[in-house]
Amino acid sequence: MISVEEALEKVLSYVKVLDREENPILQCLGQVLDEDVYSPIDVPPRDNSAMDGYAVKAEDTVGATPSSPVYLDVTGEVKAGAIAEEEVGALTALRIMTGAPLPKGADSVVQFEDTDEALRRERPLLQIGILHQVPKGQNVRRAGEDIARGQLVLPQGTVLRPSEIGVLASLGKETAWVIRRPVVAILATGDELVALGQPLPEGKIYNSNSFSIAAQVLRYGGIPQVLGIARDHARDIAGKIKEALSADMILTSAGVSMGDYDLVKDVLAKQGEVSFWTVRMKPGKPLAFGMIKGLPHLGLPGNPVSAMITFELFARPAILKMMGKKNLSKPTIEAIMESPIENTDGRRIFARAMVRREGDRYFARLTGPQGSGILTSMSRANGLVIVPEDVKEVREGESVKVLMLDWSEE
Amino acid sequence: MISVEEALEKVLSYVKVLDREENPILQCLGQVLDEDVYSPIDVPPRDNSAMDGYAVKAEDTVGATPSSPVYLDVTGEVKAGAIAEEEVGALTALRIMTGAPLPKGADSVVQFEDTDEALRRERPLLQIGILHQVPKGQNVRRAGEDIARGQLVLPQGTVLRPSEIGVLASLGKETAWVIRRPVVAILATGDELVALGQPLPEGKIYNSNSFSIAAQVLRYGGIPQVLGIARDHARDIAGKIKEALSADMILTSAGVSMGDYDLVKDVLAKQGEVSFWTVRMKPGKPLAFGMIKGLPHLGLPGNPVSAMITFELFARPAILKMMGKKNLSKPTIEAIMESPIENTDGRRIFARAMVRREGDRYFARLTGPQGSGILTSMSRANGLVIVPEDVKEVREGESVKVLMLDWSEE
Repeated sequence: MISVEEALEKVLSYVKVLDREENPILQCLGQVLDEDVYSPIDVPPRDNSAMDGYAVKAEDTVGATPSSPVYLDVTGEVKAGAIAEEEVGALTALRIMTGAPLPKGADSVVQFEDTDEALRRERPLLQIGILHQVPKGQNVRRAGEDIARGQLVLPQGTVLRPSEIGVLASLGKETAWVIRRPVVAILATGDELVALGQPLPEGKIYNSNSFSIAAQVLRYGGIPQVLGIARDHARDIAGKIKEALSADMILTSAGVSMGDYDLVKDVLAKQGEVSFWTVRMKPGKPLAFGMIKGLPHLGLPGNPVSAMITFELFARPAILKMMGKKNLSKPTIEAIMESPIENTDGRRIFARAMVRREGDRYFARLTGPQGSGILTSMSRANGLVIVPEDVKEVREGESVKVLMLDWSEE
Repeated sequence: MISVEEALEKVLSYVKVLDREENPILQCLGQVLDEDVYSPIDVPPRDNSAMDGYAVKAEDTVGATPSSPVYLDVTGEVKAGAIAEEEVGALTALRIMTGAPLPKGADSVVQFEDTDEALRRERPLLQIGILHQVPKGQNVRRAGEDIARGQLVLPQGTVLRPSEIGVLASLGKETAWVIRRPVVAILATGDELVALGQPLPEGKIYNSNSFSIAAQVLRYGGIPQVLGIARDHARDIAGKIKEALSADMILTSAGVSMGDYDLVKDVLAKQGEVSFWTVRMKPGKPLAFGMIKGLPHLGLPGNPVSAMITFELFARPAILKMMGKKNLSKPTIEAIMESPIENTDGRRIFARAMVRREGDRYFARLTGPQGSGILTSMSRANGLVIVPEDVKEVREGESVKVLMLDWSEE
C-alpha cells in the first residue's frame, strides 16, 4: 500500500500544464493567464475628477466655512469624456462631472455637497459658494493612479476572477491568452450498470458515477466528455477508450480491484503503461494510474462514494495542474468532532461530515453510515474529516482536521 | 442616507424567485431543485457484495484462522449484474464480485484477501480456505441501505452539487426541475466610455464595468447579457433599456449620482418606478433601484471598484434569490489588521484587503490606495475589511470582520 501523498505525487508527475488559447476576456473567467499583460496606457489616462462638483485651485478655498463661504466665478463646465477648453484661473471654478479630465489650472475638486449650489436658483450659475476648505488634490484621481503605462499589470499565472477581467477591460484588451481547460473523458465500466431513463432489470443499478464525476469535472473547470458505459468485455472497453484519445485525461470508474472481471486493468496493461495501487485510505483503496498512448488515465474505484472522494484527492489536483493553477490543495479547517470515529485497519479515513460554524469554532458531525456505496451520506456532507493512519479512534469533543468540499458558510 | 441593510432589504423586496425549467441533470449543477425527489427504487436494489470474495454463511466461518482455515466447497460464481442460480448451502460458498447480488442462503462475504485463493493453483476452484471468522452481514450492502423506495431523497430547495447530481443519477433520473438562472442585462452609460479594441481618444476611458460586472454575474450563476454602452442622451439610454426588457434584471453603471448628466435616473423616472439612495457605505455611496415595466433595475455607481462592491452587496443576493437560494450572504471571518484604516465620515467602509491564514488565525492587509477608481487594488484583494459606521479608526493589531470575496486558502 502507498500513502495518499505518494499516490498524488505520482499522478501529478504524469500530468502536464496544457497549451494556451486566446479567448474573449469574459470567457476567460476562472482560467489562468498565459501572458504577461503590460499596460499600453495610463489608467486613468489623465488627472480627473472623482466627484461631481467644481474644479478649483485649493489655495482659493482657504478659510471657507458654511457660515463664511468663499465665492468663485463659474466660467464653464466639463463633462465626462470631454476636454475643457477653459482654464481655471484665480478665484474661478469650472463645474465638473465625475470622470471628467481635470481642467488646466485646477488642482482639486469641491463636491456639490460642499457648495451652495443646491440653494442657488440662477441658471447658468455665475458664482458658486464653497462651504469647506479643501486640501490640494482633493477628489482628484491622478493619471496612472491605477495603472501606469508600461507597467506589468497581470503576470502570467494569474487566475482570472471578475476583478482581473475588469482590469483587462480597463486596458482595452478584448482577448487574452489563457491555459485551455482540459477535456476529461469519463467511462463507467460494469455489466451491472444501466443507463438513466431505462427500466432497471433485477440485479442491476443505474450508472451514477458518470454523472457525479462529470459534475465534479465541471465544478473544477474541466470539460467533461461522458463516454457512457463499457461492458465487462475487453473489446468494449478498448473501443470506448479509443473514443477518449482526443481528450486530455480519461477517468474510469470500477474495474481496478482484484476481481476477475476487472478488465479495465487488463485492457490498460495491453494498451499502455499502468500501475495499480492500493492507497492507504478509506474509502477508495484501489486506484489505477497510467498512460494510454500519451493520455493520462486515472482508474477510480467503482463505489460511488469512493469514486467521488478519490476524484477530490487525485483527479481534482490533476485538472487544476493541467489548467495552470498553482494551489492544488483543497482548504482544510480544524473542527471539533461531535461523533466518534474508529479506525480499525490503519488507513487514512476520509469520513463524510457536516461542518457548521458557531462563532469562531467549527463543529463536525458524521452524516450517517460510512459505507462506500452510500451516496446520500456524501450528499449531506460539506467536508471530509481526516483520521490519520496512526490514530485508532477519534472521540467526541476531540479536534480534527477537515478537508472542506464546500464552505460551511455557503 | 440609508444603511446597507435597509438598501439590501429594499432590493430583495422587489426581486422574486424565478420560474422553473426541466434540464438534463448534469446541466443542473449549481441550480436549486424545484421538486421533491422521491425514490422509485431501493438503492441498492438488493443485498449485494461490497467486496470481491466469497459469499458464505457466517456461522460456517466460526473458528477460522490463518493457521487453521475452514474449508468450504465452491459451487459456482456470481458476477456483478447477474442473479445467482445456485444457493449457498451449509459449508459451501459462491465466488462473488463487488456489486453482485448476494445469493440465497448467504449472509456474508469473505474478501479474497481473507482466503487462501491466491495460493491455490487448481481452476476452477473446488474448495476455498477461509482464514478469518466473519460476523454475519460482513461486506454485505443491504437493499435500500442508501435509499429506500418511496423515500424523500432530495427536497425542493436543495442546491445541486456533484453529489446530488450523483444521487439523482442513482435513481435513474435523466432530468430534474430546477429554478432557472436569471438573465441579467448589463448597461454601461457615459460619453467618456470607449468599447474595447478601439483606439482611446484623449479624455476617454475603456468600458471596464460591463466586463467586471458580467464576470460577477457569471460567477454567481446568472447569464449576463452585455448591452454595451449608452451615451449620455435620454434616447440612447431608453433604446438600450428596451433591449433589456426580456431579461430578469438590469444592472446599469454610472448615471445615478447628483451630476446633471446622470440621465439614467431621468429615463427611469419616466419609464418606471425608481428610488435613489445614498447608502451609508464607502466606496459606492450612490445607488438607484426601481422597476421598469416589471423588470427590477439596480443602478450601480460608475467607479469601477464601487460598481464591483455594490454588486457584491446588492446584486449578488438578488441573483441568488432569483435562483431560489436561501443563503444570500457571503461568508465573513475575523482577521487581525496589519494596516490601519481611518473612517472620516461615518460611513461603513469596505476596504480591499488580502487575507491570509496562519495556523488558525487570519491576517488582513490593505491592497494599497483605496480610491474607488483603482481596480488593481480590487484585483489584489480576496476580501473586504468592514469598518462599522461608528468606528473612527482601526489600528494595526485590532480584530476586524472581513467579508470574503474568495477564500484565502484558494
